[in-house]
Amino acid sequence: MQVYLNGSFVGHTEASVSVADRAFVFGDGIYEVVRVVNGRFFMEDEHMARMDEGLEGLKIHLNENQRNQISDIGRKLISMNGLDEGQAKVYIQITRGAAWPRTHTFPDPPAEPTVYLAAESFMPHTQLHKEGVDTITVSDVRWSRCNLKTVNLLPNTLAKQEAKERGVNSAIMIRDGVITESPNANIFGVKDGVLRTYPATNYILNGITRQAVLAIADEEGVDVNLQPIEERELFEMDELFFTGTTTDIQPINRVNDRNIGSGKPGPVCKKIQTFYNKKLEG
Amino acid sequence: MQVYLNGSFVGHTEASVSVADRAFVFGDGIYEVVRVVNGRFFMEDEHMARMDEGLEGLKIHLNENQRNQISDIGRKLISMNGLDEGQAKVYIQITRGAAWPRTHTFPDPPAEPTVYLAAESFMPHTQLHKEGVDTITVSDVRWSRCNLKTVNLLPNTLAKQEAKERGVNSAIMIRDGVITESPNANIFGVKDGVLRTYPATNYILNGITRQAVLAIADEEGVDVNLQPIEERELFEMDELFFTGTTTDIQPINRVNDRNIGSGKPGPVCKKIQTFYNKKLEG
Repeated sequence: MQVYLNGSFVGHTEASVSVADRAFVFGDGIYEVVRVVNGRFFMEDEHMARMDEGLEGLKIHLNENQRNQISDIGRKLISMNGLDEGQAKVYIQITRGAAWPRTHTFPDPPAEPTVYLAAESFMPHTQLHKEGVDTITVSDVRWSRCNLKTVNLLPNTLAKQEAKERGVNSAIMIRDGVITESPNANIFGVKDGVLRTYPATNYILNGITRQAVLAIADEEGVDVNLQPIEERELFEMDELFFTGTTTDIQPINRVNDRNIGSGKPGPVCKKIQTFYNKKLEG
Repeated sequence: MQVYLNGSFVGHTEASVSVADRAFVFGDGIYEVVRVVNGRFFMEDEHMARMDEGLEGLKIHLNENQRNQISDIGRKLISMNGLDEGQAKVYIQITRGAAWPRTHTFPDPPAEPTVYLAAESFMPHTQLHKEGVDTITVSDVRWSRCNLKTVNLLPNTLAKQEAKERGVNSAIMIRDGVITESPNANIFGVKDGVLRTYPATNYILNGITRQAVLAIADEEGVDVNLQPIEERELFEMDELFFTGTTTDIQPINRVNDRNIGSGKPGPVCKKIQTFYNKKLEG
């Protein structure tokens, strides 16, 4: 697999960064994952806008030329790796760069940001979309700037691993008695035909697929209530589903071994899947 | 400078890790910084014990041989870099290793952990210890497992940078109305001769220097109250000081431009500095 790192296209096993890279020593960087279908970058503008927000939030300054090349580098990788047809994803990571000595404060003068992109083929979780998944609840122990898509992802990895070890697909994170999101997806509930999801505050990542689902709801006249689902309401929901760039729209059948609704993918989720797939397939 | 990376001693500019290293993409690793004085590792056992706790907390498994070599590698680096005399520090970082493809769950089978050590000469902040420093308060936005010394340090770097940009030495982080710690040091207050500091819960890193100060207090008959200092009590403190492996014992003169006590290093802090320096010098 060919990847891009700081101006060069190299084989993925050759791509390496300094141990002084601030992503390695501080988790000081942001990332994006963009879905690519038949060479088309799905909701590219939204991903690029969020990337810009992340860079701004962390005060990482790419020069305009670097910034404007990102999409084209992604497209070149898709092509170089023979991914022009079918499903793929592009991973983009930008860090504050490498600097000696290690200091918590930003390098002064600034370091050259590290820019890394990879493109891989992607197999949608079609079976899971049809059948739904089981989950557990875990405590949301993350920091309070979850709106930034940074590589400080340790709590996310620990929660996802806990879910795996407990034999389920993913975890539902709970902070202060309300459901925020999963380690790598947003969560929607359905109650009496109304969609419920956490509002786009600093406590969740405002997923691009989440935004697509809200757009679908708007287009299709589905009511939305941006009131977080409380933990005590969880089992009163008729339906529950995850949304994410590689998750797509994934029904949740059970939480902590208890059924949500009928314990099977529900009609609102299925309807949204249909509309979402249309958007995705362009 | 010679550093150690995964079995080899190399020049620091040659030390590089895969872009698939989980510290680079997830901040999935732990670190330690050990103070070295005339070749002696200060409070080595305590650092190694905390490193073990971090590895256990993250479920990163070093084999026994690797684990037992860490200190010796550090000592070798001290020697190789001509640091046997005077002040130095050893940086140790251990990550979950590199694995393709990128998945939130741990690599299965496990990846070989990345082991990185560096040794550098160190100049104690003698002037600051004598004169004290100014600080600001910031919101403690970190996750709730701050007891683990991980490289998920983005909130710490942002707080430290904010302090720098506002012209002061460091920041005092406040969570839920109480003072936790600084981005890279613990905080002690003194009121009527009694030491106050945050208890060793999941909301602070239990610093090795913090432990040394508590030991000094015990040895010297200074009373300690492990009741967190509330924000509203901050300016009622007679003294305030930072403690840390590279911070040592650093008096705080002002917070948000307001004096703490006399606005100068106080007697309890000075006394602790004296005892601490004795321990440090061995």
